Parts: sequence; C-alpha cells; structure tokens
Amino acid sequence: MKLGTVEADGTQRVAVALDDTRAVLLAPGTTVAGLIGDWANAGPAVELAAQAGAEEAVPVASLSWLPPLPRPGKIICVALNNSANASRIMSGPGHPATFSKPASSLLGHGRPVRLKKEFGRVHPEPELAVVIGTKGADIPLSRAMDHVFGYTIINDLTSPDMRTEDTFHYRAIHPAKDGGDGIEYVDTWVSYSGRYKGTDGFGPIGPWIVTADEIPDPHDLTVTCVHQGRVITVDSTANLTHKVDGVISFLSGYQTLEPGDIIAMGTALKASASGGAAVQNVNLTRLGGPIEVTISGIGTLSNPVEMP
Amino acid sequence: MKLGTVEADGTQRVAVALDDTRAVLLAPGTTVAGLIGDWANAGPAVELAAQAGAEEAVPVASLSWLPPLPRPGKIICVALNNSANASRIMSGPGHPATFSKPASSLLGHGRPVRLKKEFGRVHPEPELAVVIGTKGADIPLSRAMDHVFGYTIINDLTSPDMRTEDTFHYRAIHPAKDGGDGIEYVDTWVSYSGRYKGTDGFGPIGPWIVTADEIPDPHDLTVTCVHQGRVITVDSTANLTHKVDGVISFLSGYQTLEPGDIIAMGTALKASASGGAAVQNVNLTRLGGPIEVTISGIGTLSNPVEMP
Repeated sequence: MKLGTVEADGTQRVAVALDDTRAVLLAPGTTVAGLIGDWANAGPAVELAAQAGAEEAVPVASLSWLPPLPRPGKIICVALNNSANASRIMSGPGHPATFSKPASSLLGHGRPVRLKKEFGRVHPEPELAVVIGTKGADIPLSRAMDHVFGYTIINDLTSPDMRTEDTFHYRAIHPAKDGGDGIEYVDTWVSYSGRYKGTDGFGPIGPWIVTADEIPDPHDLTVTCVHQGRVITVDSTANLTHKVDGVISFLSGYQTLEPGDIIAMGTALKASASGGAAVQNVNLTRLGGPIEVTISGIGTLSNPVEMP
Repeated sequence: MKLGTVEADGTQRVAVALDDTRAVLLAPGTTVAGLIGDWANAGPAVELAAQAGAEEAVPVASLSWLPPLPRPGKIICVALNNSANASRIMSGPGHPATFSKPASSLLGHGRPVRLKKEFGRVHPEPELAVVIGTKGADIPLSRAMDHVFGYTIINDLTSPDMRTEDTFHYRAIHPAKDGGDGIEYVDTWVSYSGRYKGTDGFGPIGPWIVTADEIPDPHDLTVTCVHQGRVITVDSTANLTHKVDGVISFLSGYQTLEPGDIIAMGTALKASASGGAAVQNVNLTRLGGPIEVTISGIGTLSNPVEMP
C-alpha cells in the first residue's frame, strides 16, 4: 500500500495512492503516524476504505502533498554509504556514521525548494529512506527487518559551501594520558551539519510511503535522479555499503528507534552512463529545478526550485 | 513561572514548581507544548491553578520528571560558543555553527544516564537552553527575544571517542572550476554527530522551563557543574560568544523556528578555581555519577549514571 499525507481545505488528510496517478483520500482525523502505530488493526481497514473509495479517486497531480510523515521524531541520515565512496575515504569508521535532519527541513512532493543566495551551492542527493514501524533498541540483525514499516524517497539536499563554512580546525581538549586532572590539546577537525543539511526545504520527501510487503528486496531498487529532464544518476541500492538490516541493528544499539522515525540510507552516486555529471555538479542555486528522484517500486519525487 | 512535565500513574502531567522544592500538578490532558502554543490565554489560567493548588503541592524530589517538553520538534545545539574556545580555534566560522540532538536522546531530571562500554568516554557539557515560544523565520535581531518562551538547563553529554570514530578523512567531490560537468577532488575532514551527541540518555534536560519574564538577562547567569559533589565548572553565560538574540536571528534565516524548539547555547567551560579539572576529564563511563548542572534563576538538573 502507498500512504501519503496531503493538505485539502486547510486540513491534513491521508492519501492512499492506488497507482502512480490516482489516490483516495481517507476521512479527516486519520494520520499516517496514527496508522503506523496501530497498523495490525488499521492496515486491513485502510485497504477496504481505499477499495471502497476507488471510484472517487483523484489525480495524484491534483493533490497538495505534504511529507508522508509531517513531523517524524527523528530523521537519521547515513553518511558516505555507497560503494563508490570507498576509494575516496582515506580514513573513517567501518560502521554507519550518521547525522540528522530536522522535521522542519522536510518538504512534500511538488512543493518548491526556496533557495537564498546565502545558502551557497546546493546539490541534490537521491536516497532510499526507511520508515520504522515498531519501537526497538538493541535490535539483533536477524530481527531488524521486522521493524521496517515501509520505504520512501528522500532528496537529501546539501550545501557544500555551508559545510566548508561550518568546519572548525581547532585544538580539542582531551584528558591527559596520566588519568589525572590535567589536559592536553589534540589537533582536530569538526564539521557541523545543522545548516548544510538542516535548512528549510533541504528535505524533499515522498510522495508516499510504500509498505514493506511491496518491496521484497530493498537492495535491488534502481535510483534515478533527473535534473531539468537530464538524467544525472542511475544507481542501484545494491551499492549501499551498509545494508538496511545492518544499519537498523547497529543504530538501535545507540538510539531507540521509534515508529515513524526515518532512516535515509545514503546517496545514490553513480553518474548516468549517458550523462557524466555528478550530483555535485547540479548547483540548484544557480541552475534552478525541477529536481526529480525516482526509485523503482516506490515512485517519483519531484520538486521545483525557486532560485534566489 | 516554572513549567515541567512529570509522569504520575502512567500519564504525563504538567507540574508547576512553586520554588525549588514544591510543585503543583495540573489536571491531566494539559501539556507544556499545548500551553506554549496558547500562552497568552493559558498563562494566567495556569498561574491561578497553581495558586489554588498550593496547599496540595508535592515535594519536587517525590516526582518522576520527564523532559519539560518530551518531544520537541528540534533541538539545535550551538558548537564551540564560549569565549574560552576562541584561542583554540585555528579556523572556523564567525557565525553560530550547530548540530542537533534527537528527542529520543532527552532524559528528565533524576533519571539515570545508562552508559554502555561501546560509548567510550562520555563527558558532561553544562548549558543554558532557550525554548522558543512563537514561530518565526528571518527574524530581525531586534525582535529575536520576542520569540523566547523561556529557559531551561541541558547537559549536552558527549562521547569524544565516538566523535573520533565517526570522523572521515576523504576526498570530497567538487565541481571542476571551469563550470562544466567535470569534477575535482578536495581533501576534506567531516565528522558526524549522530551517535556522539544523539545517543539515548545524552540529553538530560530540565527539571523545568522558567518563563522569560523571570530571566531579565540570560547573559548574566551562573552555570555550575558538579560531579560526585565536586565542583567542576563555574562559568557565566556572559562568556557566550554568540548571544541568544544573535543566535535566534541568524539561525532563523535558515531554519524556521517553531514553538517548543530548543536551542542549547553551548558549553560553559570555565574550570572551577578550586578544582582545575575540565569537563573533558569527567569520564562518566569510568567514574559514574551523579552529574549535576545548576543555573542561577533556573534550578538544578541532577542525574545518576549507570556505569557499564
């Protein structure tokens, strides 16, 4: 099933997409977060409601889409998680490393990314996103997939200029090695992602969540990124270094995963054979949009861009 | 007024602290987030209810405290924002740089920080936190303080070992300077704060929010950090490099600030004159707790530590 959230007459409604072009709106008062929290009961009822409403289905293109979950508890993003990164990493962890995006950065399908001159360069990062269905901590690898509610698409917009600006080279305070109260200074680089990953509009997501039963193998999906009609990226989720189950199991040893939490799995990087540009070449601040991400079995997330 | 959230008989209740030792519980169904959203109307009613309930006030120490806002939309933390940092920064931005903590990392006053061996070293970071009252984007400096609902205390627990682990040295892809589809590689360090700042229990916060009317100058507060009865830090918020109004105005140019959002203003660093240890010397994973942060005019946030 495909579950999204739309705005209709000033209220939020759950939209069940019947296919890529038609959707049924559920009665007001239901939310995607509420459905996820009670899916065992709610799922069959939603299925019936969608079937019953099929004759009144409306065009997907006519709806005003919000993020499928407008206010997730957390949005965890896995960094540098594509096999194409490996040759460029001189040192780094062997496990998933993550940053987060705030809910306020999310944007629904079709809504404009509004850029300002001070954002600097902004490029797209097309990614598979996992939606957590059931709460868990210290989840064993073998049970990790039981915690997946479904999948959606996220375009993890990034400003490399803000990344450079918000990087410090400094002498970090470490305790002296003798174990006493003394300190020593260690030459350190730290970068802070609050702005370069978390600015308003840097998280187009959706259009909807596809329930896990429709995605038998999340590591066999084609990810395509298209800018102004030109294919930039054609990659496969087979190229993710850390897989969905491994990421869930590892992260849940540190952070309790909650229903509705979102995990962005990392950027699909492989440049289109016919194109040759990297996502980093697509500077939306200068070039504008639309910018589009398609994942097979899920759908297409497309957003116009308002240039400064 | 001092507003907190407690758990009583399995439900969340708003607690109004009359002073540091006694609190009145409001009727079930009210939440701190709800009150903030409608404070102009709710404030006077809460004041009356607290006065009316004063005779049934209960000891603060008898209550089971939750984070004052259990599920804020975002928790923005300003990095390296103390005048004591300046001499150690070799390069970095002149504006506030930020990371975030997820709501799932927050912990109420009195609740145990549960550490695991794999967290490595974990040290306290005592900080003033600002609670946003009214929504805003592109907020001018002169109006910034109008968006403050109040202040609380956060202990921004940090694992420097996880920070080191989750730092990459890699060759970032940048577009070639000729403006075409070519790329070039730039030697880059990036660090990811998902685990080292966002692990469960890394955000003790509270006990309560003090409304802004009780804090005439947020840059004249004494911040004290005490570990196992020993004073580690005595600092003043006067030493914050970027001030509350400047941070709100700057950040709101990038991220819409929403009611209930929390901004942690940066670590109070100055070692106690009598002590001499730095917060970085206080390795809670090895030493255990309790760990306590007091801010004048707000209160004391104290948490036990469960060692691995």
